[in-house]
Amino acid sequence: MTGKTIQLDHGSGGEASRDLVEGIFLPRLDNDILSTLDDSAVVPMFGGRMAMTTDSYVVDPIFFPGGDIGSLSVHGTVNDLSMQGAVPRYLTLGLILEEGFPIKDLITIVDSIAAAADEAGVRIVAGDTKVVPRRHADKIFINTAGVGEISPEVDVASKNARPGDKLIINGDIGDHGMAVLTRREGLEFNTSLTSDSAPLNGLVDDILAASPHIHVLRDPTRGGVATALNEIAAQSGVGIEVIEKDLPIGAGVHSASEILGLDPLYVANEGKCLVMVAPGDADAVLRKMRRHPYGKNAAIIGEAIPEHAGRVLLKTRVGGTRILSMLTGEQLPRIC
Amino acid sequence: MTGKTIQLDHGSGGEASRDLVEGIFLPRLDNDILSTLDDSAVVPMFGGRMAMTTDSYVVDPIFFPGGDIGSLSVHGTVNDLSMQGAVPRYLTLGLILEEGFPIKDLITIVDSIAAAADEAGVRIVAGDTKVVPRRHADKIFINTAGVGEISPEVDVASKNARPGDKLIINGDIGDHGMAVLTRREGLEFNTSLTSDSAPLNGLVDDILAASPHIHVLRDPTRGGVATALNEIAAQSGVGIEVIEKDLPIGAGVHSASEILGLDPLYVANEGKCLVMVAPGDADAVLRKMRRHPYGKNAAIIGEAIPEHAGRVLLKTRVGGTRILSMLTGEQLPRIC
Repeated sequence: MTGKTIQLDHGSGGEASRDLVEGIFLPRLDNDILSTLDDSAVVPMFGGRMAMTTDSYVVDPIFFPGGDIGSLSVHGTVNDLSMQGAVPRYLTLGLILEEGFPIKDLITIVDSIAAAADEAGVRIVAGDTKVVPRRHADKIFINTAGVGEISPEVDVASKNARPGDKLIINGDIGDHGMAVLTRREGLEFNTSLTSDSAPLNGLVDDILAASPHIHVLRDPTRGGVATALNEIAAQSGVGIEVIEKDLPIGAGVHSASEILGLDPLYVANEGKCLVMVAPGDADAVLRKMRRHPYGKNAAIIGEAIPEHAGRVLLKTRVGGTRILSMLTGEQLPRIC
Repeated sequence: MTGKTIQLDHGSGGEASRDLVEGIFLPRLDNDILSTLDDSAVVPMFGGRMAMTTDSYVVDPIFFPGGDIGSLSVHGTVNDLSMQGAVPRYLTLGLILEEGFPIKDLITIVDSIAAAADEAGVRIVAGDTKVVPRRHADKIFINTAGVGEISPEVDVASKNARPGDKLIINGDIGDHGMAVLTRREGLEFNTSLTSDSAPLNGLVDDILAASPHIHVLRDPTRGGVATALNEIAAQSGVGIEVIEKDLPIGAGVHSASEILGLDPLYVANEGKCLVMVAPGDADAVLRKMRRHPYGKNAAIIGEAIPEHAGRVLLKTRVGGTRILSMLTGEQLPRIC
């Protein structure tokens, strides 16, 4: 690779594009599928059903405490597949680069993608890079799409919650959104704020093995826990009661939220999973989660109820109850 | 849907996002898979091998003669799958929108996506929308990723060309790039320039049925025919000889090229397919192509030769021979 910044011809499909692929992408992401460099990848088929998802990542800043846009783009799509009870297998990678983007930042991001894919056990099988003139995009946007394999016995979906199901989360809420926001705005707090961005497929494997009665898995990303729970309540036709005092919230997020006037229930997470499970299996699932590195602070935070179908209720610390609505308005732009 | 333009909260994951999905996307793209609105789509598995691909579309202008960024984003990905000999099945759709983008343009584009998907027989099974502040992106960028099914007997790849193979193209070259460029620059010519953007899976089905000896399929998009042929020559380890007088070029592209000083061999196509086939089957494949609406101007334009491995040679009209290199430099930015 020559040059220190991305130029328009890196997106031309010609020689400079080939230099980018052969100089930066292949050495880091190489596998026998990607390296054929055909128009499409050819992957072996697997049995059962297939989960398929896509997400674009436009996070600002592109480097933040606990991750960067590269690792985030792998974790987010791995997690979307995992929330369907699927084992993530293959990802595609689509980059949109702004002319002038530093090559060294691109290399850092591709390294981060490669490390995240390795940890999650997925392969990047196809890719595409476009370059747009300066000020037609902001630095780098990444799309990852992915497919995963769903075992025949798995049946999790946002519509499957039943009254009585316990609601479990695998740890502290609001870390990702708050880490990105405070870094972007240049805010400093006494406590450190770090994104929770992580691949959850290993944790999901563990809990699916621990109970055949996992009904719902959902990652509370944009819109936070409150919005994800509203979607589950609406799709399952149940009410969901959340116990405020049981919500795990780190000290940093707690104090930053108070200072900034933000509610952590609406702040994005990138390594969290909401689980609804039959009550008899809740303790077993909770124990299993707590033994996993990404589940140490797991907690039961509520349950599904037959009343108030489609609504989410918060039992507050002071003993009251209030409705927890979906996010309205854009609380935090470019958070993922 | 309320409001006339896209606002940041349309990408929040909250209520405004839901309005966008339920008001615009679902009515146009609806199918039983997409409408579950879970984190991933669940699709039935098919036998054989799977092709998988991704492309981001950043074309400027977003509306051009013969198509728009929506239809292009479906055709491009359908064609990438088809070039692997795969039957395209499922697509994902990732949108990045600039704050202030007109809702009516979004609707036009989603309608165009739906029509293109219908024609190609593919389903949009998962989607994602991000909104970035004004001037952080230019209007709309689209990523489509797709999967397709490859029959066990199909074996096409850019590395499969053999000396003696005939090189066929299904029609005129340079139409897409020239139509986009002239519209963007506000140029007027006596003859009309229209993009060739089209789904090629039907045409590919026909020719795969016409010959078991199709060795290579490749769509000459960014970088044009010259760049695609260089990739085939390099991957197959053959020389490729192209006969200049046999290249089908429309009158509009011919005159625009002369005026602008561009070589149509390097201009992007979005409805063209390069085919390398065993010589005995070339005429049968050519006849089959010419009977298809997207192959009326099909022509044999050259052949693979044992000499000059990895190189592409152009036999010129005046009887000379020159090397046709890969595209160097960015001839036309934001062409797809």
